[in-house]
Amino acid sequence: MPIGYSHLPELLPVAGIRLASVAAGIRYQNRDDLVLVELAEHSQCAAVFTRNAFCAAPVIVARQHLAAQQPRYLLINSGNANAGTGEPGIQDAQQTCALLAEKAGCTAGQVLPFSTGVIGERLPVGRIEAALDKALAGFTADGWEAAAHAIMTTDTVAKGISRTFTTGGRQFTLTGIVKGAGMIRPDMATMLAYVTCDAGVESEALQQCLNKAVERSFNRITVDGDTSTNDACVLVATGAEGSDRIQSGTADYGVLCEAVNEVCSHLAQLIVRDAEGATKFVTVRIENGRDRDECLQVAYTIAHSPLVKTALFAGDPNWGRILAAVGRAGVELLDIEKINIFLGAVCIVRNGGAAEDYREPDGQRVMNQDEIVIRVQLGRGDAVEQVWTSDLSYDYVRINAEYRT
Amino acid sequence: MPIGYSHLPELLPVAGIRLASVAAGIRYQNRDDLVLVELAEHSQCAAVFTRNAFCAAPVIVARQHLAAQQPRYLLINSGNANAGTGEPGIQDAQQTCALLAEKAGCTAGQVLPFSTGVIGERLPVGRIEAALDKALAGFTADGWEAAAHAIMTTDTVAKGISRTFTTGGRQFTLTGIVKGAGMIRPDMATMLAYVTCDAGVESEALQQCLNKAVERSFNRITVDGDTSTNDACVLVATGAEGSDRIQSGTADYGVLCEAVNEVCSHLAQLIVRDAEGATKFVTVRIENGRDRDECLQVAYTIAHSPLVKTALFAGDPNWGRILAAVGRAGVELLDIEKINIFLGAVCIVRNGGAAEDYREPDGQRVMNQDEIVIRVQLGRGDAVEQVWTSDLSYDYVRINAEYRT
Repeated sequence: MPIGYSHLPELLPVAGIRLASVAAGIRYQNRDDLVLVELAEHSQCAAVFTRNAFCAAPVIVARQHLAAQQPRYLLINSGNANAGTGEPGIQDAQQTCALLAEKAGCTAGQVLPFSTGVIGERLPVGRIEAALDKALAGFTADGWEAAAHAIMTTDTVAKGISRTFTTGGRQFTLTGIVKGAGMIRPDMATMLAYVTCDAGVESEALQQCLNKAVERSFNRITVDGDTSTNDACVLVATGAEGSDRIQSGTADYGVLCEAVNEVCSHLAQLIVRDAEGATKFVTVRIENGRDRDECLQVAYTIAHSPLVKTALFAGDPNWGRILAAVGRAGVELLDIEKINIFLGAVCIVRNGGAAEDYREPDGQRVMNQDEIVIRVQLGRGDAVEQVWTSDLSYDYVRINAEYRT
Repeated sequence: MPIGYSHLPELLPVAGIRLASVAAGIRYQNRDDLVLVELAEHSQCAAVFTRNAFCAAPVIVARQHLAAQQPRYLLINSGNANAGTGEPGIQDAQQTCALLAEKAGCTAGQVLPFSTGVIGERLPVGRIEAALDKALAGFTADGWEAAAHAIMTTDTVAKGISRTFTTGGRQFTLTGIVKGAGMIRPDMATMLAYVTCDAGVESEALQQCLNKAVERSFNRITVDGDTSTNDACVLVATGAEGSDRIQSGTADYGVLCEAVNEVCSHLAQLIVRDAEGATKFVTVRIENGRDRDECLQVAYTIAHSPLVKTALFAGDPNWGRILAAVGRAGVELLDIEKINIFLGAVCIVRNGGAAEDYREPDGQRVMNQDEIVIRVQLGRGDAVEQVWTSDLSYDYVRINAEYRT
C-alpha cells in the first residue's frame, strides 16, 4: 500500500492527445500492457532519457527519432524492457515503429518506442504487431486511467495527476502519468513518465522546461541507488488549445514551468510512495551547505545507507547511523561541531553531539509516522537540497529476490 | 552461519603479548566484553583508523596517544562505541586509560582505547573500572581465543588466524583477531583488528607495512557501504623473539609484509564471510580497466547495488542487474561493446550483449554455490582490482532493524 496515496485521482483529457491501451500478452496475462499515445499534428515533444551507459534499445531508437523530427505517436509496452538485447533489440524496436507507422499512416521516425520490464529477453514483436489494429481502433481522449494501469510493472498502484494553469487569460490542462517503484531497477527498467499539456510551447523552451523540472523531481528521488537502462520522461505540448507557442523568458513560460515542476515533483514523489516494500516516505533535507553538490552528496549518502534505511523500517530513531552517514559522505573539511540533525521538528544532534535536551520518546514519535523528514544542517553556507526516499524492508528483499521466479 | 568458515582455528601465542578478557557488563550479560592486551616493553605499534569525519572518542584518544609514544596496553570494550558522545565521551575514554595506567604502573598515554557497539550512549566508566583488577590478574599468552570472542558484537563467530613465517633463519609467529559483520566499506568498517608478531620491526617500516596491507584487505571489503565511526586496525611487533628490528627495503621486510598481507586479507574476508545475514561470499573482480580507480569504482557499484545483492541472495543469475550497475558506475567514455561479464567461468555478457552461447542453467549452477566470483572485463587497459562482498538477505534487514531493540 503506497504511503499517503491510495488511488489514481481523476485524470483530465488534454486537447490534442488520445490514448489506447490493449492487452498484447507480452508478459502479463489478463491485463493491458501496450499503450499508444497519439499526439496532434504540430505538437512539440521534449524528453529526458537514462544516463546509464547501457541504455536499452528503445532509448537509443527514441533518441534518434526525436532528434530528427517531432513524433506523432508514443508506443509503450510493459513486461519487456528490450534492454541488453544488442543490435537485434534495436532492430526489434525499429520494426515496431515501422509496423505502427504503416498502419497509422506516418513515418517510422514519427514513432517513439518505450519499453519497461525484464532485461535481456527479445521483444515479442509479433504480439505487439497483432495488437496494433485493436489499439488504433480504440483511441480516446479519456484513456489516461487505462494507460496509467497498462504501463505498471511492480507498481502496486496506478500513478498520475492532472492540474490546470491559466496564462494569457486561457486555461490549459496538464496531465501526467508515471510508472516506477524503485527509482532504479535495471531489470524492471524503472521509470517512465508522460506529461502532456494543451498549450503550445516553442520547442527549445519546452526541452529547457522539462530539464529543469526533471532535475528537481525525478532526479531527486532514490529507492535503492540503482539506475535503469530504460528511464524516460516525456513532455508534450500539443498546442491544441490554440494558443501561440509560449516562448522562453516570458511570464507565460514562468507559469508553464511552475505547473510542470509541480506535476513532475508530484509524480516523482508518487514513485517513492509506491517504492518496493516501502513503509515510510522520507524527505532528506540538507541545509547550510557550501553548495548544492555537497548537499546532494550528503543527502544521497543518508538516503542510500542500508543502515539508515533499516532503522527507518524499524521505526528506530537511531541518530548514530545518520551521523555516521554524514561523516562518510566525503565532504571536505567538514566541521562536525557545526552539525545539527533533526528528525521532524526534534533536534537529535546539536553541534556534532547528542542534543542535550533530546529524549528518545520524542524521536520515537517522529519515527512512528509514515512520513518522516530528516534534516541536516552542515553549518557551511546557504545551499539547500533535498531528496525523497523510502525505507529498506523485508518486502524490498522479497520483491527483488523473487522477481524473476 | 558464516560462509566457508565454521570456527576459530587454533591461535598461537605471540612472544611479548599477553591478553585478558573479562565480563564488565557494559551491555551484554554473561559474556566477556572487556579485553586488555599487554605489549612487551620496546614493542612497536602501528595503526590505521576510520576516515569517517565523525570518528569516535576512543579513536581520537588512541590517535593522540600513539602519536606521542609507543603503547604498553590496548584497552578494548564491546557493547558501547563511545561515539557521538562529544567532549564527555573523550573524557570518558581518557579516564579509562588513566584508571588502567594507575593500576598497571604506566602512563595514561601508554594505553590505547578501542570501543565497538552502540553509538550515542555514554561509556559506563565505572563498570570498566570495576573490572580492571580482575583483568590485570588474568593475563595469559593463550588469551587469543577468549579475546576474539570478547570483541564480538553482531558477529556470529569469533574470527582470527595464526601463521608463522621464517626470515633470517628464525621463525616468527603472526596472530590476528578481528571483529566486524556489517557497516563495512572502503575505508574500513565497524571493524577492529589486532595483528601482532614477535619479530622486531622498525617503527616507520611497520606503519608502511600495515598501510599497504590494509589497502588491499580491509579497504577492499564492503557489506552495506556504510562505514563506522570506530574502525581501527592495529599491528604490533613485539621483537620479543630477540631479532634485530627489521628495516624497510630488506628481504626480511618483504617476507614480513607478505605474511601481514596474507593475515589481513584472510581476516578481511572473514568479516565478509560473517557479514550480517550473508548467504554468499562474493568476489567482484574488474579487469582491463584504464586504472585501478575506475576498476574500484565499477567493483563497488556492483558490490553496493541492492538489486545485484538481492539477486545473489535469490541465487538468480540476473546479469541484467550486473550490466546495469556497470553502466551507471560513472566510467567516462565507457565503450559498452568491449565489455564482457563472467559468473565464475561462465561468460554471460560478451561485447556488451548477452553472450550467444550463454545458457541460464550454466549461470544458475554458479549462483547456487556459496562462493561466487563476478568478473567484469572493461576492455580499456591493464588495471585490475577486486573487492569482496556479501548478498542482501531478509536476515540483513532483520539484524539491522532489530539491533537496538
